[in-house]
Amino acid sequence: MSVRHASFTLQSDRRPTFDDVTPQVEEALAASGITNGILLVYSQHTTCSVLIQEASDDVDYWGTELLMQDLVTVLEALAPTCRTEGQYRHPGPKHIVAAAGRDELPSWSLNTDAHLRSVILGRSQAVPVVDGAMILGEFGRIYFADFDQVRARERTVRVQVVGE
Amino acid sequence: MSVRHASFTLQSDRRPTFDDVTPQVEEALAASGITNGILLVYSQHTTCSVLIQEASDDVDYWGTELLMQDLVTVLEALAPTCRTEGQYRHPGPKHIVAAAGRDELPSWSLNTDAHLRSVILGRSQAVPVVDGAMILGEFGRIYFADFDQVRARERTVRVQVVGE
Amino acid sequence: MSVRHASFTLQSDRRPTFDDVTPQVEEALAASGITNGILLVYSQHTTCSVLIQEASDDVDYWGTELLMQDLVTVLEALAPTCRTEGQYRHPGPKHIVAAAGRDELPSWSLNTDAHLRSVILGRSQAVPVVDGAMILGEFGRIYFADFDQVRARERTVRVQVVGE
Repeated sequence: MSVRHASFTLQSDRRPTFDDVTPQVEEALAASGITNGILLVYSQHTTCSVLIQEASDDVDYWGTELLMQDLVTVLEALAPTCRTEGQYRHPGPKHIVAAAGRDELPSWSLNTDAHLRSVILGRSQAVPVVDGAMILGEFGRIYFADFDQVRARERTVRVQVVGE
Repeated sequence: MSVRHASFTLQSDRRPTFDDVTPQVEEALAASGITNGILLVYSQHTTCSVLIQEASDDVDYWGTELLMQDLVTVLEALAPTCRTEGQYRHPGPKHIVAAAGRDELPSWSLNTDAHLRSVILGRSQAVPVVDGAMILGEFGRIYFADFDQVRARERTVRVQVVGE
Repeated sequence: MSVRHASFTLQSDRRPTFDDVTPQVEEALAASGITNGILLVYSQHTTCSVLIQEASDDVDYWGTELLMQDLVTVLEALAPTCRTEGQYRHPGPKHIVAAAGRDELPSWSLNTDAHLRSVILGRSQAVPVVDGAMILGEFGRIYFADFDQVRARERTVRVQVVGE
């Protein structure tokens, strides 16, 4: 039995992004040498999620897969994009002071919608690894979602594999 | 330490189904010989979820547990059942062509609501295994949910156990 | 490779509570002696969830972090607090009889909103452990959420670590 860790980065946009990271995760699994176990794809960012979804084939004008755009539409009704200060209770004054201490602009904290959307979708996906491959079925793909709409950022995706 | 994999199938319906699979999962755990570790119950289908919920005791005329019917009601408001082509952006024309190449009818792709509902609920549940038993508390049961309403299907449930 | 289990309790309230349990989980990890692997923080209660979220700094008059209050507001629209018997289909008559057999008051079962909210948010969080520490990024904190609004209770939080 062993444990292997890998990570890689990707660049997000100032709109919700959904990166199919299946190839990078498969590469990490192959490099781990583990053929049976549990693989965890994990977001250390609290405005991001990891999802398993069917590939949509079609994309919209922005390059977003249509099924993911439908997801954004549903989430928009549930936790609307933060367009005005005070729309949500967070961020409050102490949070803005703390953010300033990290050299963050106050407006960067107006991403409450992303915090809410991402915690509903979840931070990670665990996948069974059997005979050297992830069990993803005929259609499953692993996506890294970034819901933060206040700034484009480099994001880190974590892969942890436990098995033999 | 060892890793054990098991799977079993069930038959879904053309309405949301919630199968209590706790007995099958317990059987897979017992057969694994693992007494301490992490057990993952996993859906390889992207219109299905695995949930842990209290048993409802009462069922409606369709046999659906009342608490699960309440869940469907909430999800219906969030991501309404796809009743008309074009209600959601997915499936687009490329997806329909790809589906035809797999001998799928175009109407089978009108399950966008199921893709959305299931990704919000999640693909799997991880459960601690301690002294030979899953920790499910007094009321927890493991359910396999199939949200696809366009066709009844045989579904595969995966159980992966890592431990000793 | 080894498996270590720990648990601790906390006291919830008759309103949604969000306890930052990161210190207790870190303590359980340190006591486990495991430095690389997967750590699972898990709720055995079906009206509770485990979440990873940014700390909000500010709190409201009830002591609830503002970002968590925003989450409650979103969930209130999705699955409203159960205020009248019959608002949800669950609990039905058989459930009330079964609850009475456990010496539970009928009104204790009017927590359908909590069952729904918690299953949407999820029962657990899996976190990579690398070089002795959980990967939580700059801002991630682990919260135990209790959505049950019918009674205050002592709740058990489970921590399972698999690794080496």
